[in-house]
Amino acid sequence: MADAFSLPLAEIAARLGEGKLKARALAEVAIANHERFGGKLMAYSQWAPEHARQCADAADAAFAVGSRAGPLQGIPTSIKDLFAVSGFATYAGSPKRLPPQFEIEGPVIAALRRQLATMMGKTHMVEFAFGGTGHNAHYGAPYNPWDANAHRSPGGSSSGAGVSLCEGSALLAFGSDTAASVRLPAAMTGNAGLKITKDRWSTEGIVPLSFSFDTPGILTRSMADAAFSFAALDPHLGDAFAFLRRVPESVDGIRIGIADSWFWDECENGIDSVVRAAIDKLARAGAVVKQTPLPEAREAYAVFSEGGVSAIELRAFLDRELPDWLNTIDPVNAPALKTAETLSAREYLSRRLRLLAAATTAAAHFDNVDVIATPTVMVSPHVLAEETGPEQFWARNRKIVHNLVPVNYLSLCAATLPVGLDRLGMPVGLQFIAKGGDDERLVAIACAVEGVLGAPRDVLGVAPMCRG
Amino acid sequence: MADAFSLPLAEIAARLGEGKLKARALAEVAIANHERFGGKLMAYSQWAPEHARQCADAADAAFAVGSRAGPLQGIPTSIKDLFAVSGFATYAGSPKRLPPQFEIEGPVIAALRRQLATMMGKTHMVEFAFGGTGHNAHYGAPYNPWDANAHRSPGGSSSGAGVSLCEGSALLAFGSDTAASVRLPAAMTGNAGLKITKDRWSTEGIVPLSFSFDTPGILTRSMADAAFSFAALDPHLGDAFAFLRRVPESVDGIRIGIADSWFWDECENGIDSVVRAAIDKLARAGAVVKQTPLPEAREAYAVFSEGGVSAIELRAFLDRELPDWLNTIDPVNAPALKTAETLSAREYLSRRLRLLAAATTAAAHFDNVDVIATPTVMVSPHVLAEETGPEQFWARNRKIVHNLVPVNYLSLCAATLPVGLDRLGMPVGLQFIAKGGDDERLVAIACAVEGVLGAPRDVLGVAPMCRG
Repeated sequence: MADAFSLPLAEIAARLGEGKLKARALAEVAIANHERFGGKLMAYSQWAPEHARQCADAADAAFAVGSRAGPLQGIPTSIKDLFAVSGFATYAGSPKRLPPQFEIEGPVIAALRRQLATMMGKTHMVEFAFGGTGHNAHYGAPYNPWDANAHRSPGGSSSGAGVSLCEGSALLAFGSDTAASVRLPAAMTGNAGLKITKDRWSTEGIVPLSFSFDTPGILTRSMADAAFSFAALDPHLGDAFAFLRRVPESVDGIRIGIADSWFWDECENGIDSVVRAAIDKLARAGAVVKQTPLPEAREAYAVFSEGGVSAIELRAFLDRELPDWLNTIDPVNAPALKTAETLSAREYLSRRLRLLAAATTAAAHFDNVDVIATPTVMVSPHVLAEETGPEQFWARNRKIVHNLVPVNYLSLCAATLPVGLDRLGMPVGLQFIAKGGDDERLVAIACAVEGVLGAPRDVLGVAPMCRG
Repeated sequence: MADAFSLPLAEIAARLGEGKLKARALAEVAIANHERFGGKLMAYSQWAPEHARQCADAADAAFAVGSRAGPLQGIPTSIKDLFAVSGFATYAGSPKRLPPQFEIEGPVIAALRRQLATMMGKTHMVEFAFGGTGHNAHYGAPYNPWDANAHRSPGGSSSGAGVSLCEGSALLAFGSDTAASVRLPAAMTGNAGLKITKDRWSTEGIVPLSFSFDTPGILTRSMADAAFSFAALDPHLGDAFAFLRRVPESVDGIRIGIADSWFWDECENGIDSVVRAAIDKLARAGAVVKQTPLPEAREAYAVFSEGGVSAIELRAFLDRELPDWLNTIDPVNAPALKTAETLSAREYLSRRLRLLAAATTAAAHFDNVDVIATPTVMVSPHVLAEETGPEQFWARNRKIVHNLVPVNYLSLCAATLPVGLDRLGMPVGLQFIAKGGDDERLVAIACAVEGVLGAPRDVLGVAPMCRG
């Protein structure tokens, strides 16, 4: 049974559908995995094995009478605690339970429910998703399973999402991505991640960080699993299985742009070599590879470095909906939320307009390529104890979101897939960026790429803290 | 030939397609009408009869070889000078020509071009579309053709759009609607107007007022013409003609909510009686009419009255793109743009979040009705000379947009159609509000309603300044 868990999601779903595998048995494997590895990893803020068993039994009961509720029926799933999930409290990484209106499920979770997925629990996150290292003063940070000797960043803000996949307690993990928060933890834990185009998937039922840039997203063990989940969840695909059949079998003729040096220059620990080697392999397999600068990324990153829009949008949200939560805000985040008080509307709107203008010209770079490739993160997951205060924290944060936040700020979409290990033995991600709205093509291409590069489990092996 | 001009747009298009009518002949009627009535009405800032003739000849040449470029081929069309139209300068109601990037056509005008419509010229507007009375210190305001004795407001900010229809120089007029600016001039000049759901039609190639709420829109002589034009232009309809065939032939079973007293209490000159009589007629024809409050309109209007978001968003745009234009800004608008300097980002975002929250609950009021009916404007078009300074101007502006701005601020869509004359002999509009995204159903219903109430030309007659 544990073997079934290591199959691709599509194969697991097929076995469930054929009655060769029970959703309950799958849930028991997930629960056993968590009991085995989860104690130290801290992926979950609310671990719910009994609820999971009930979900799985419901899925099995439906299977037994021939009901196929959707591709995710019986699939163990973890959910970032930014999402309202009925039967669970919502804390959004804060120390106090949020009011009831934040526990009403939105369309994304409703789709999961409709398909009778197995909900394993809610994963840890950075408080209000504001930050990328995984730091959380109230609950601590989950452990990155790739280093058994040091407490390294699991990435954030969906900090428990990737970890839940590594430990084998979920086959699909929900996160949200406002500046990096799906792709960063995915890349840092050796998983695939998908940042959907803004407004393609509803943000209803998700506690907002920045209403201008929030997007739901998914993390999976592989791009093949991401494609399966995307097909199951995307409301704009007519037929999930027709989409999956359209995924190309090779990368022949796929046009891959290589991003300019701004995305590469500060790579450390051999990350650039790992990513370049992967791209070279794609070129040998028939992909058309060409230099494709994305200069608007600098402007987007400049806006981010000058303060961005998340701090003020989060502050306005807290002022309005959760003023009491300001008193207990993480000390690392408090200064940014305080500074936001004096920001003028002109400055805020100047940032928004700069980004809108940059997004308009950025779209043209995709006229001659399907995707632009970059290292997902230029630096290795760091030891969390190295952060000793807000300034170090934010300096580190600026580094790790460097190649990621431009995607959000330029209205694009992107996927990351794991392509190797750096010199520290930490996972390295390859990011593909596509034009806003091109999610379908992006997923198909990333999937074909994975077919050439090999399944992540074969390429990376198993995280040290989840072995044996 | 002049007779052909008085037919419904669908019939004119059919005759053009059959070769019974030439686009050039139609353009000549439009030109003759403008020469006859236009001198005093001031609809156009750039009147372009030679360009129109060339467009019409191109349409005829295409017809002659059997090319059908689209339903609007050869249809005389006027365009608010907020839109980039190649071959025309863009002033956006300001005294100076805008830089070249504001003369690059966006998708809406590109669709018109593709269909070989006949472009008659660019219509006058309020400077940067900021205001609803039609006032423009640089160029004066167009005349409302319904009062030959006084210079009354033609509505704004698309102040020349409705007038161009009245004088018979266009059969379709493009405007934009950020708070009222399509529906207000449509209603005040006895025309139909359509405010599309935000983001359904692109705003690219349109000088922005408020990027949060700007929408392109259309004015036509009737809802039947609006439905024809909507079908021709909407990028989300698969087949324009299939949509038109789905327009119901009666109002039997259509569920019309009557908005609460907030939308009626300050009606003057018998406007409420005219609108109620129209709704009573619909009820007798089988429409299901029920009281349906829309209390969120009060909150939306409160945000507008506290300063809204247009002034600061326009200010941020001018700061960034057109700083020199601030020196010559209309004295009526200057104080609001000055005040915006001191607005905090928290206050701005508080307004945005209040509107987002109100929009969420407002949508639920459409669960049991198809549309909610209101008077389009509660007051008669006023004599422009009564405005003597910014304060009177803005007090009047708040009155005339009262029933309109909530539609924009609550992410809804709406149509207005003319249903009679008030005690001053000025046109009265009936507004139907629908849920955001329900544009297709809205247009179909408003069209069916017009079928019961009668064609505007029969109901209202011809504007006094365009008679004889």
